[in-house]
Amino acid sequence: MRVANAFLSYLILHTWLLFIPHVGSISGDRSTYVVHMDKSVMPKAFASHHHWYSATLSSIKAVGPAASNAVQSTPKLLYTYDNAIHGFSALLSPDELQALQKSPGFISAYKDKTVTIDTTHTTDFLSLNPVTGLWPASNYGKDVIVGVIDTGVWPESESFKDDGMTEIPARWKGVCEQGEEFNSSTCNRKLIGAQYFNKGLIAANPGGINITMNSTRDTMGHGTHTSSTAAGSFVEGVSFFGYAKGTARGVAPGARVAMYKVLWEEGGYASDVLAGMDQAIADGVDVISISMGFDGVPFYEDPVAIGSFAAMEKGVLVSSSAGNEGPSLGTLHNGIPWALTVAAGGIDRQFAGTVTLGNGLIIIGSSLFPENALLLDLPLVYNETLTACNSSLLLSEANNAIVICKDNGYVYGQMDEITRSTVSGAIIISNDSFFIEVGDFPSPVVVISPIDAPAVINYAKAGAKPTASMKFQQTFVGTKPAPVVADYTSRGPSPSYPGILKPDIMAPGSRVFAAWIPNQYTAKIGSRLHLSSDYNIISGTSMACPHASGVAALLKGAHPEWSPAAIRSAMMTTANPLDNTLNPIRDIGENFEFASPLAMGAGQVDPNKALNPGLIYDASAQDYLNLLCTMNYTREQILTITRSSSYNCLNPSSDLNYPSFIALFSNTSSSVQEFQRTVTNAGDGASTYKVKLTPPEGSTVSVSPSTLIFGKKYEKQSYTVVIKYTPERNGTVSHGSLVWVDDAGKHTVRSPIVVSSITI
Amino acid sequence: MRVANAFLSYLILHTWLLFIPHVGSISGDRSTYVVHMDKSVMPKAFASHHHWYSATLSSIKAVGPAASNAVQSTPKLLYTYDNAIHGFSALLSPDELQALQKSPGFISAYKDKTVTIDTTHTTDFLSLNPVTGLWPASNYGKDVIVGVIDTGVWPESESFKDDGMTEIPARWKGVCEQGEEFNSSTCNRKLIGAQYFNKGLIAANPGGINITMNSTRDTMGHGTHTSSTAAGSFVEGVSFFGYAKGTARGVAPGARVAMYKVLWEEGGYASDVLAGMDQAIADGVDVISISMGFDGVPFYEDPVAIGSFAAMEKGVLVSSSAGNEGPSLGTLHNGIPWALTVAAGGIDRQFAGTVTLGNGLIIIGSSLFPENALLLDLPLVYNETLTACNSSLLLSEANNAIVICKDNGYVYGQMDEITRSTVSGAIIISNDSFFIEVGDFPSPVVVISPIDAPAVINYAKAGAKPTASMKFQQTFVGTKPAPVVADYTSRGPSPSYPGILKPDIMAPGSRVFAAWIPNQYTAKIGSRLHLSSDYNIISGTSMACPHASGVAALLKGAHPEWSPAAIRSAMMTTANPLDNTLNPIRDIGENFEFASPLAMGAGQVDPNKALNPGLIYDASAQDYLNLLCTMNYTREQILTITRSSSYNCLNPSSDLNYPSFIALFSNTSSSVQEFQRTVTNAGDGASTYKVKLTPPEGSTVSVSPSTLIFGKKYEKQSYTVVIKYTPERNGTVSHGSLVWVDDAGKHTVRSPIVVSSITI
Repeated sequence: MRVANAFLSYLILHTWLLFIPHVGSISGDRSTYVVHMDKSVMPKAFASHHHWYSATLSSIKAVGPAASNAVQSTPKLLYTYDNAIHGFSALLSPDELQALQKSPGFISAYKDKTVTIDTTHTTDFLSLNPVTGLWPASNYGKDVIVGVIDTGVWPESESFKDDGMTEIPARWKGVCEQGEEFNSSTCNRKLIGAQYFNKGLIAANPGGINITMNSTRDTMGHGTHTSSTAAGSFVEGVSFFGYAKGTARGVAPGARVAMYKVLWEEGGYASDVLAGMDQAIADGVDVISISMGFDGVPFYEDPVAIGSFAAMEKGVLVSSSAGNEGPSLGTLHNGIPWALTVAAGGIDRQFAGTVTLGNGLIIIGSSLFPENALLLDLPLVYNETLTACNSSLLLSEANNAIVICKDNGYVYGQMDEITRSTVSGAIIISNDSFFIEVGDFPSPVVVISPIDAPAVINYAKAGAKPTASMKFQQTFVGTKPAPVVADYTSRGPSPSYPGILKPDIMAPGSRVFAAWIPNQYTAKIGSRLHLSSDYNIISGTSMACPHASGVAALLKGAHPEWSPAAIRSAMMTTANPLDNTLNPIRDIGENFEFASPLAMGAGQVDPNKALNPGLIYDASAQDYLNLLCTMNYTREQILTITRSSSYNCLNPSSDLNYPSFIALFSNTSSSVQEFQRTVTNAGDGASTYKVKLTPPEGSTVSVSPSTLIFGKKYEKQSYTVVIKYTPERNGTVSHGSLVWVDDAGKHTVRSPIVVSSITI
Repeated sequence: MRVANAFLSYLILHTWLLFIPHVGSISGDRSTYVVHMDKSVMPKAFASHHHWYSATLSSIKAVGPAASNAVQSTPKLLYTYDNAIHGFSALLSPDELQALQKSPGFISAYKDKTVTIDTTHTTDFLSLNPVTGLWPASNYGKDVIVGVIDTGVWPESESFKDDGMTEIPARWKGVCEQGEEFNSSTCNRKLIGAQYFNKGLIAANPGGINITMNSTRDTMGHGTHTSSTAAGSFVEGVSFFGYAKGTARGVAPGARVAMYKVLWEEGGYASDVLAGMDQAIADGVDVISISMGFDGVPFYEDPVAIGSFAAMEKGVLVSSSAGNEGPSLGTLHNGIPWALTVAAGGIDRQFAGTVTLGNGLIIIGSSLFPENALLLDLPLVYNETLTACNSSLLLSEANNAIVICKDNGYVYGQMDEITRSTVSGAIIISNDSFFIEVGDFPSPVVVISPIDAPAVINYAKAGAKPTASMKFQQTFVGTKPAPVVADYTSRGPSPSYPGILKPDIMAPGSRVFAAWIPNQYTAKIGSRLHLSSDYNIISGTSMACPHASGVAALLKGAHPEWSPAAIRSAMMTTANPLDNTLNPIRDIGENFEFASPLAMGAGQVDPNKALNPGLIYDASAQDYLNLLCTMNYTREQILTITRSSSYNCLNPSSDLNYPSFIALFSNTSSSVQEFQRTVTNAGDGASTYKVKLTPPEGSTVSVSPSTLIFGKKYEKQSYTVVIKYTPERNGTVSHGSLVWVDDAGKHTVRSPIVVSSITI
């Protein structure tokens, strides 16, 4: 039995603008281990799994070496798990671990590890509306429960008010846990559950740790943002300092939220994440939203993968974020075949400042300066020696003027100098004509595209007394192209299993507006004035994930009978590969080239189309087990994930019935890969589908049969895909699609195809 | 014939926070004169008054001395007037004026003069609501036209959008005048007219003048604020930097606005004001709102008094502001018997910051800091040497802390020092426990009452490490007591005629929220960052006046047949003398003592009660003439006001049928004054009223008869009031009331009584 201790893994919260301190390795004799047990061999003498695990731990204590330190004399049980996994977490010394490995029912154990984090016009952008489609069909997700595994929640946020909501569904078993600044009465009909888990964190700090907020209350904002994105209530008249003014709402505004706080300012640990997922499954949530992931771990040591398997078996879809390690390929985490993996894209909205030159020319740039600053007909200064804008002293020569700066690659530093100078405002010319988003504007600054720069410079140079005016708090919607793939979104192939195309789908992740905690600063004016707000605009796959979670919740509300695989299939096969210019979606991380499915999966989630997908690619727990059986895992490693000893590997198969295709070839010569798929008619009656193929460059794709005839609803039909590939050059990735179109033209069931010589 | 030139009069825009530069006397040979003519003697040969006035002016040119200067060789005609007055304004030399005085039809002439200026929860505060009362009864003032004589308008303001408004009434004769940055297409169904008048201003500057904005566009904000207060549309989701968040609306949101711009950044002149009023009457407005006045002029040289007379004759009520020269007695202007004179009061709303001490104590103070600054658990510094807060250098010793300051009588200077220091915020302890409103908060400062000071100081002194947190952008409504009389509101008795009790009524004037111009700064952060906003919170009788104008417009909509006197009577006799604690309204200017009618008139306007006043004190043009006949005016002075030579002084009477009583006595011995009044039954049928008297201190009041019996609607009944007064000491003012209460208890028709030995 191997004990994992060499993994350079850490749990990452998927937010671009937020950093979580990563706690280092545990000092002292003992470390926390997550221990998976085979519950099927539990002796009947034990009243519960809890007793059994406790007894097991006590027994290894007996066989362990005599303690030299009284405090460290017993292995300490942290959590017992019974839903996400069968097993427990405990503080164990190496000797104790060795003894435990010999205990009856022991499957596997691995060291606790820390987590990596991944961040509202978005509902409009996703075409959700009260009149047609998924909102009315699902009654806005009424009575669907979204469990969010995150940093906690700010329960007083307007986004969690429960005005007009009906009684909490009777099936709900969760609680509202008392804690620091959090009463058991704090929950309501919107925020129905709140629990917190930090035993792993405390155990990881044997020298003692001061927990900043020992309750489900959010002190980081992340969980408040993600949970309000998934299922926040309608809140009118909000903005982020005048930007994004309007009505906040979650994707599933009628759904309920249960928060499981597992991430802390002091760190996040696998044992706590597992405890949160375990509880969520036990409580009866319908969807789990988890905007974080563990990098560089195999599935059998990945708490998200393990917890997701149990959730999937109970009909609970786990929606997870792909990570923010893009744009390099193979950076993705949560590439879990039985979960949903969500990439992040942009929105058709710009937060802007406008510059009006003295000659009347108006230029729209990017800005988030948090006030309606009045800069009217001020002198406009273009001075070659000032354009670097890297000295507040030099800049102050342009006292009370608007100065023109050139992005020197470190805009934040330039902002600082501008802020400390006596200029009234600045125009920064970006280096990048495509992507000029900057987060922090402590001064009245507008960042403009290099395309617009000559007009400004020429006017400033030529004019006798050049002047400019600036306006802030401008929000433009309908910007094109949108969506675009975010540069930061982590890319496939999935290191943990490249044979399934990941990510699955893209959702809005950049500059997402949602609820925030009011006691943290979100903007600055000048060097000293810190501002806070109840809503924040942040970016990350952390923000994309809860959008997908919300859509999944709506689909669960509209189709309670759908399996997690069916919900995911509906979202993927109806996703939109085109942007709002009707061209293929582009990728910021790839210089605005057309995006690959390794960046965005099947494309941008399209909730209303997902409501009625035509065909479904379903998969059962057994199908996932058959896949696991091909992964060269030991029995114990598989049992760590599946928990049930009754699972067998009689039919190992890597041909999972997945709604996408990836063919990876060793980069030597031409090759062939074959795929089997079975689709279920989710439409109401008989229908005939014909295949439409767009083969990836350098490949030929054939499908047999090319017509599928369904006599009634729920009928299944199978087909075979053969992909022949001749590599043109090493390392290329090409992509295409396979689309089933019904005769009535009502349904297009699209699967992306990726062919590559890249291997992970 | 006297030519007025010694009057220290100037036209004052009645705003507390706004200064208008006053242009000095005219240099050069000629000055502008307003000339009143007797149109009844116009020779039939002239096609129009315009021809006659031109010819008259030409004729005096002929008789005038030879011009030494070609440019100045002819008297220049500025305006001819035909509605507000009969006459014209012209640039005249002393000789030309002398010649003109001998021309047929000449009545009077006086030198042009400059004007003095006088600021939405207020509709809520006035109990206007969509369900009952004046709003539904008048259909929100639909099709009533309010003419506003002011600084122009910002036509793009959301408050002037016309969504859902019906066609402009066919009777409307006004235009939308083309001008600088103002198209004739700029008007709409809400802002139906826009005209500008500045010939008087130009003439007053013979050396030439650069008009900042030669059109009806507002560059000062005043006119945009007053007109949107009177009749602005509903606009959701607005605020003043987070304060007063909600829906803006005018008092008569269904009424139309016609703007007559007569006030300029460069000054305001009687000739232009008269031109605006003249045009408004000709255009067919229903109510004129004029938030400005001329100080120290008799009625026959007061353009507002003169224009109001013509308006009154046409059934148009002129609603005017009392002025901001309080709290001294006898400071009021616009004390015009045939117009409405409006005083300013406070609102039940506080713009606040909250201070939370480390011990949990929360203190609410006054603040308008324009951002959601984050000051969380900062050190709280109480240091005797720092409390003066008059040195930024000293203050910076409390770097990044919250410092406690004591109001040294110059809070704005202290704010400046705080702003230039490195403290994070400050708590200023006010000297005044009642009135702690400060306008400008460039730093995170909360001004607290001296009553709350000991708790703060004791905690700061005693605590080991005292801390405080501050929150801004807090708005509290329902504060008590409210309304209170503003200290600045000008007081009666009216210098121009003390025999009529003025002001008539009080309306909200302090910290009024209404539309503003976006290109002027309305708040500051730090020393250098100027902020602008589309709405502003300002104070003055200028802001009270349009509230009353809006109510008058609603009453006109509900009762189109009511005369200006009837509308005023309804507003006065139903006004509320009590505040929201049900005690008499208090006066900030009098150390929070109970207010006198010389400060607030009959009390706070109560729109819904004014809809159905029970009895009406009406008055006709002849009644006002009879009053004028007692004023020791010459025939020409009277004709200057009344225009019509058919008016006679056969029945001079100072006993104007006014809904209030003032008895002024020479301070020698006891005296008696008798008043005759006639009331009209405005109720629907028979009714019986009984008198209820509250005699002023030191007086006895008797009424005969003490019961009035009405058989039907519109029936009139008269009564006599005798006030006997024994002065206790010199200079006292005492007040009481006379109330007619009907048997059904539905109507209380209240008149204030003032008795005083003060004479003006």
